[in-house]
Amino acid sequence: METKHTLPAEIEGYGIVTPYRQVFDPERVKPCIPRPGKMSRPGQPKLQKDLRSLMESLELKDGMTFSFHHHLRNGDYVLNLVMEEVRRLGLKNIRVAASSLFPTHAPLVQLMEDGTVTDIHTDYMSGPVAQAVSRGQLKHPAVMTTHGGRPRAIAEGDVHIDVAFIAAPAADPSGNLNGVTGPSACGTLGYAIADAEYADVVVAVTDHLEPYPLCPAEIRQNLVDYVVVVDSIGNPKGIVSGTTQITKDPVGLKIASDTLKVLAASGLLKEGLSFQTGAGGISLAVAKELEIYMKEHGITGSFASGGITGYIVRMMEAGLFKALWDVQCFDLDAVRSFRENPNHMAMSGDLYGNPHNKGAVVNDLDFVILGATEMDAEFNVNVTTGSTGIIMGGSGGHADTAAGSKLTVIVSKLVSARIPLIKERVTTITTPGETVDVLVTDRGIAVNPKRPELAEALRQAGVAVHSIEELQALAERLTGKPQPIQTGERIVAVVEYRDGSVLDVVRQVLE
Amino acid sequence: METKHTLPAEIEGYGIVTPYRQVFDPERVKPCIPRPGKMSRPGQPKLQKDLRSLMESLELKDGMTFSFHHHLRNGDYVLNLVMEEVRRLGLKNIRVAASSLFPTHAPLVQLMEDGTVTDIHTDYMSGPVAQAVSRGQLKHPAVMTTHGGRPRAIAEGDVHIDVAFIAAPAADPSGNLNGVTGPSACGTLGYAIADAEYADVVVAVTDHLEPYPLCPAEIRQNLVDYVVVVDSIGNPKGIVSGTTQITKDPVGLKIASDTLKVLAASGLLKEGLSFQTGAGGISLAVAKELEIYMKEHGITGSFASGGITGYIVRMMEAGLFKALWDVQCFDLDAVRSFRENPNHMAMSGDLYGNPHNKGAVVNDLDFVILGATEMDAEFNVNVTTGSTGIIMGGSGGHADTAAGSKLTVIVSKLVSARIPLIKERVTTITTPGETVDVLVTDRGIAVNPKRPELAEALRQAGVAVHSIEELQALAERLTGKPQPIQTGERIVAVVEYRDGSVLDVVRQVLE
Repeated sequence: METKHTLPAEIEGYGIVTPYRQVFDPERVKPCIPRPGKMSRPGQPKLQKDLRSLMESLELKDGMTFSFHHHLRNGDYVLNLVMEEVRRLGLKNIRVAASSLFPTHAPLVQLMEDGTVTDIHTDYMSGPVAQAVSRGQLKHPAVMTTHGGRPRAIAEGDVHIDVAFIAAPAADPSGNLNGVTGPSACGTLGYAIADAEYADVVVAVTDHLEPYPLCPAEIRQNLVDYVVVVDSIGNPKGIVSGTTQITKDPVGLKIASDTLKVLAASGLLKEGLSFQTGAGGISLAVAKELEIYMKEHGITGSFASGGITGYIVRMMEAGLFKALWDVQCFDLDAVRSFRENPNHMAMSGDLYGNPHNKGAVVNDLDFVILGATEMDAEFNVNVTTGSTGIIMGGSGGHADTAAGSKLTVIVSKLVSARIPLIKERVTTITTPGETVDVLVTDRGIAVNPKRPELAEALRQAGVAVHSIEELQALAERLTGKPQPIQTGERIVAVVEYRDGSVLDVVRQVLE
Repeated sequence: METKHTLPAEIEGYGIVTPYRQVFDPERVKPCIPRPGKMSRPGQPKLQKDLRSLMESLELKDGMTFSFHHHLRNGDYVLNLVMEEVRRLGLKNIRVAASSLFPTHAPLVQLMEDGTVTDIHTDYMSGPVAQAVSRGQLKHPAVMTTHGGRPRAIAEGDVHIDVAFIAAPAADPSGNLNGVTGPSACGTLGYAIADAEYADVVVAVTDHLEPYPLCPAEIRQNLVDYVVVVDSIGNPKGIVSGTTQITKDPVGLKIASDTLKVLAASGLLKEGLSFQTGAGGISLAVAKELEIYMKEHGITGSFASGGITGYIVRMMEAGLFKALWDVQCFDLDAVRSFRENPNHMAMSGDLYGNPHNKGAVVNDLDFVILGATEMDAEFNVNVTTGSTGIIMGGSGGHADTAAGSKLTVIVSKLVSARIPLIKERVTTITTPGETVDVLVTDRGIAVNPKRPELAEALRQAGVAVHSIEELQALAERLTGKPQPIQTGERIVAVVEYRDGSVLDVVRQVLE
């Protein structure tokens, strides 16, 4: 069977393609680019009159790269505010390097159409921008990376940022920033750290200015050129969800309970365990199963990591974890905990998942619970494109945690809305199958043949193990064999692995 | 009058001399050097068996640069432990880049004599190493910089560090480090940050290993290659002084009280004030005067910075300052406060004083109180060499804070041990006179002629102002005109300004 999707040697608007070869590829390592030098005199004011006059003074040029972080998620106002000024200035061929793009960033579509924006670099996108990219409305292919691949790309110069615009829930006039106070508090600012370190110019955009010095200061004044105050940087309703909910669906609960059996059989449920899971309903149900198991067995974990929810916070507060490594707070409980508890530690995207530093946190993970839109017999996972081929997500930390953790578990229904999970080939490879160990579905569990000792341990523990082909056949008996998605030839997005090699491409959807 | 000491165009063992031109010299700014790239796989152990076997495995070579930080001060064991292994390995022509050197580092003298160490780069040195350098026992001139100049030199590549050895009071097996727990707790690790960021190889040396993840983690695992456990990294008695004492000497108290009059007249004693002072007796007496004034006038300050003492901690705890920026804890009270109080913030040497970043904390200082060994009529200050020409200190943060703060006040007795403070020319320029505003002595106050408005404000406030020449003459009436120090021709140390230009040289003492 063909192990990788066929890739062109070169892609117009992207360049030479270096295909993905292996999970940890020493040949991909490059030295970092030089960080910019600058001289600062006392009394040079950083605080600017307004965003417009600042941007007029910055000598911005066509073809520049402007960067944004996504801690304000679907409540973010800053990207649109800045890009409206970019349009007004008449700039063209701009690259938007945003750690993620959400439905709220829909105004970018217009800027793609009028030539203001021709390039996008992101770890995740959903909503109108993702749909427009999928339809071929962006001039050049979007580049989609991971949360760990992004700081690597910035540090190694794949993405040279001309101006980083950092949405700052709190700032002081000298450029110290945090995310824990102010009306738009979002928690940690982990994804913005690489931008602050490597961009030529760093602009903090805030709606909450405090007297000097801001405490705490997550991003510090030695990295920030300008501070600008706007009316509002975000809509609190879109920034954090009020509470995160465990699924009530019995199918999801069964998957969670079976996942715990897999974890127990793996031998990883022991003192000092570490784990990561997302904010989805099944993921949280796994966290709840884990909580019960840890309490029953008197196990204390070392850490949980990733985007942090209130559920995980409560596990730490109950003494089940010593610490949290938090790259992004998902809800208000997480923001509160990060503000108050020193063991709730912020981490940068680099610390989280950059494969080319001296040791990312993902490398210390025992197990990670991840979702999937599609899988194939080689355990490749797609969380980038949906069933119609339209981009509806991206790796985020998916490929990073899968590569780093001792055990990667995919949890998913085998059939959703009459569409089977397992395909002959996934529409898009987001995470290479060699980094995925187990698939837990409502209709059975499959273990990657690369982990025969794990399959044996599950069987010894009385957990039924199927081949993924068996699960595929089972699903197809229910749904029929799914038709491959018909796409056009044009490449609308390039999916990079965390090391910058190319995993796959996304082709234009036909409508 | 000659404004600068005459400098050679080139110095053997140092290279071409770029003379100091001005406080903020845009031509000195360079881009940073690329930080090293590295790939880390999960399960690669960082924890090493012992220091010796690690060093044998590191492929160390003659001519390399090894760096150290001085948070363990005169209690540090790490530099000697490492350098003994360097000697055992037979390495030659090694550069020791230590943020400061203390009497406890006396074993370095033997390594200078046998050719193991031929170069020293430091911000401060006192004791046998400084004496040996002064006598010409180091092959090449020592380079003496400032606490802000050191991270600049590291980032800009003047000092490329092959291996950084970071004394870590606490560490975990993945290389997260802090200074607040363990038997050798010293507080913040501010001076080690640049080393951790830019060294090719970073080795943490600890005597207190905690389970993963260490909380808090001031230096993080993404910057650390190896962790090594030794019996002890330091002698607690030498690491921090038990308590810091305000002078009881009436002469010192008068200087402090007159300093407060100067500060009051300067207009800087108002809401939001910021200041820095050292741990010396007169400096602390000024802090006490300031405390009384702030309480009486209901003034709340923004921050105090620098090396932090318990006295300054108590001022924050009394509500007189909102926050502290701490690059180094001077005593146990400061360590305790830093561990417990989020408003007691660590700062790196870069954030503290690097002139080539986007804004160092010294630039936000209202006033700094500094000492002097010698001054001259141009307000140049020497804190590098003593009355016999022997090196007994160095800038530390002296030149950095003087450059950044709105008002730089030198406090000193006019005559100490029959030696006058003010000389025809200072033996060594540590801090350029153009960054010094006022001299307060027990026998009068002088204002730099560059600040006529300040002299006028003092007179308006009823503070007698003398010319520095008057103070010089007054001292000479008591002591006679001091004889210039007779030195040899050989240059034993080069004094760099914080931007890397050369301020002065130190010549060999004759004995």
